[in-house]
Amino acid sequence: MTRLFNDPTQFKEEMIGGFTLAYSRYLRRVPDAAGVMALGAPQPGKVAVLIGGGSGHYPVFAGYVGKGMADVAVIGDVFTSPSGEQIYRCTKAVDGGAGVLYTYGNYSGDVLNFGMAEMRCQNEGIDVRTVTVTDDVASAEDVEDRRGIAGDFFMIKTAGASAARGDSLDDVEALTRRANDRTRSFGIAFGGCTLPGQSEPLFTVDPGKMELGLGLHGEPGIKSADMASASEIARMMVDIVLADAPADAGHKVAVLLNGLGSTKYEELFVLYKDIHAQLEASGLALHNPLVGEFAGSLNMAGCSLSLLWLDDELQALYDAPASTPAFTHL
Amino acid sequence: MTRLFNDPTQFKEEMIGGFTLAYSRYLRRVPDAAGVMALGAPQPGKVAVLIGGGSGHYPVFAGYVGKGMADVAVIGDVFTSPSGEQIYRCTKAVDGGAGVLYTYGNYSGDVLNFGMAEMRCQNEGIDVRTVTVTDDVASAEDVEDRRGIAGDFFMIKTAGASAARGDSLDDVEALTRRANDRTRSFGIAFGGCTLPGQSEPLFTVDPGKMELGLGLHGEPGIKSADMASASEIARMMVDIVLADAPADAGHKVAVLLNGLGSTKYEELFVLYKDIHAQLEASGLALHNPLVGEFAGSLNMAGCSLSLLWLDDELQALYDAPASTPAFTHL
Repeated sequence: MTRLFNDPTQFKEEMIGGFTLAYSRYLRRVPDAAGVMALGAPQPGKVAVLIGGGSGHYPVFAGYVGKGMADVAVIGDVFTSPSGEQIYRCTKAVDGGAGVLYTYGNYSGDVLNFGMAEMRCQNEGIDVRTVTVTDDVASAEDVEDRRGIAGDFFMIKTAGASAARGDSLDDVEALTRRANDRTRSFGIAFGGCTLPGQSEPLFTVDPGKMELGLGLHGEPGIKSADMASASEIARMMVDIVLADAPADAGHKVAVLLNGLGSTKYEELFVLYKDIHAQLEASGLALHNPLVGEFAGSLNMAGCSLSLLWLDDELQALYDAPASTPAFTHL
Repeated sequence: MTRLFNDPTQFKEEMIGGFTLAYSRYLRRVPDAAGVMALGAPQPGKVAVLIGGGSGHYPVFAGYVGKGMADVAVIGDVFTSPSGEQIYRCTKAVDGGAGVLYTYGNYSGDVLNFGMAEMRCQNEGIDVRTVTVTDDVASAEDVEDRRGIAGDFFMIKTAGASAARGDSLDDVEALTRRANDRTRSFGIAFGGCTLPGQSEPLFTVDPGKMELGLGLHGEPGIKSADMASASEIARMMVDIVLADAPADAGHKVAVLLNGLGSTKYEELFVLYKDIHAQLEASGLALHNPLVGEFAGSLNMAGCSLSLLWLDDELQALYDAPASTPAFTHL
């Protein structure tokens, strides 16, 4: 559960305050808005990358603001979309005249608020484009209806690297969309998280059970199943993700095994051992795997597997340098 | 609790297996030993840095093996020291002829086993030196009796950077010892963790209470107290750490606010806001703070504050580049 807070209604503000004090070498508060902006932004002539959503998912989103990733993150209350007004202010603050790419998870509140800000900015002459992240195969049959989970990381990395090397807004948008088209994720949960000031978890999972495909905020999953061994879970996760592989996407993949909060690193490595072997046995070449906490859900127990099917251009962007509070790559 | 495993007796081996598969771009398994070694090690003429201890504390220890930090980590079972034999084998594997520095937390099992390996290696002509980490102010009155907690990170960074720039074993040892002499930590816990295959937590904290100074494995703390607000906890942690400040250590500090596993990032940032303000109000200059999970205890709930009082030389080592699975600094 969440134990460290003062007034729960001030949780977000105090979190942003502590975060910007700790990481002032990367970013600063956006004036008069609930957002954080990379040092050096806005950069005239460079496309800006704007991300955001509810808080409670750190390092998503604020942890990825800095060189080579996002230029600004708009920060909502816990598990709540930021308002259109906040997104608008952050867009205005970060625009360097070359346009702004929005990329965020496909949730109705976010789509509504980011969409309103986008329209308002377009009306003021700022070229804004949007790539919503739809990586979660469990959330809907049609790709465009799917929600975004840890695959967010791949799109932020792709967009940020593309913008950092000076690509046009057309290109940043097209590459980020291509990354999303080639990303698939699947998650499981063992237990819910407790919001600041609440005494009961947002949802519970029965002891000895796991929820397949459950969302980051407790949205219903595919089904409940008996708890299984790490090897069995690995097999199931790989099977489900590969059954939904994008067509003609080649055989090289970036791999992200993500812990949600209280399923810890050592467990993830045990699980990863079988995931790696199974992905290789299916003929995939694994590129620079990541195992850790990249998109959380407070102290929720569970994990997700994300694959990005790389081509040469997406790989170059994935391998490009980045320097942010939560992810640095040489 | 720990949910992802197969045979609990194979947890460590499977974890090492998955870890080395994921991070083969940084390190590889030590042949015939429970350890992982940086690519490029042993490096002839370079001092090697050996770290290790029980598993369950990731990123401590294996996550810090790579360029600019440790050359090898010896990995014990969960919360259990590695054997002298394993430490000996890892020392032999990593020695490049310029000697090996051991640095690890001051726990009796570790001291015994690392001590035996050190003697055995000395007898075979390998120059081994040891700096035990003793940062936890709550664990004993006398500094040399104190245990090591998240301050480990500072000593691994110092030793690794010193060895990487080509310092002699005398110098690597002296600088690492100086860093330990200037590091102080204090931790609190809200709940215990559950080991793989067990159904009950290692220890419990009563609801509405927190344990002050509790150890990473449930060792007794100073006392139990009523749960307090983040601001009150910040004040207490800062007061206790500063009351034990090393003499004549200057006013510049590296700061590490560490989450143990299920006390999450957003909470840590709320706590950090007041910690930062209070440290500055006491006249300290804060250098590149870190807030996150740097030394865990499976899914234990709690956190710790560590300060390293820097001088120019320690700051240069702290700021030196590093590239490992869990910590990269440009």
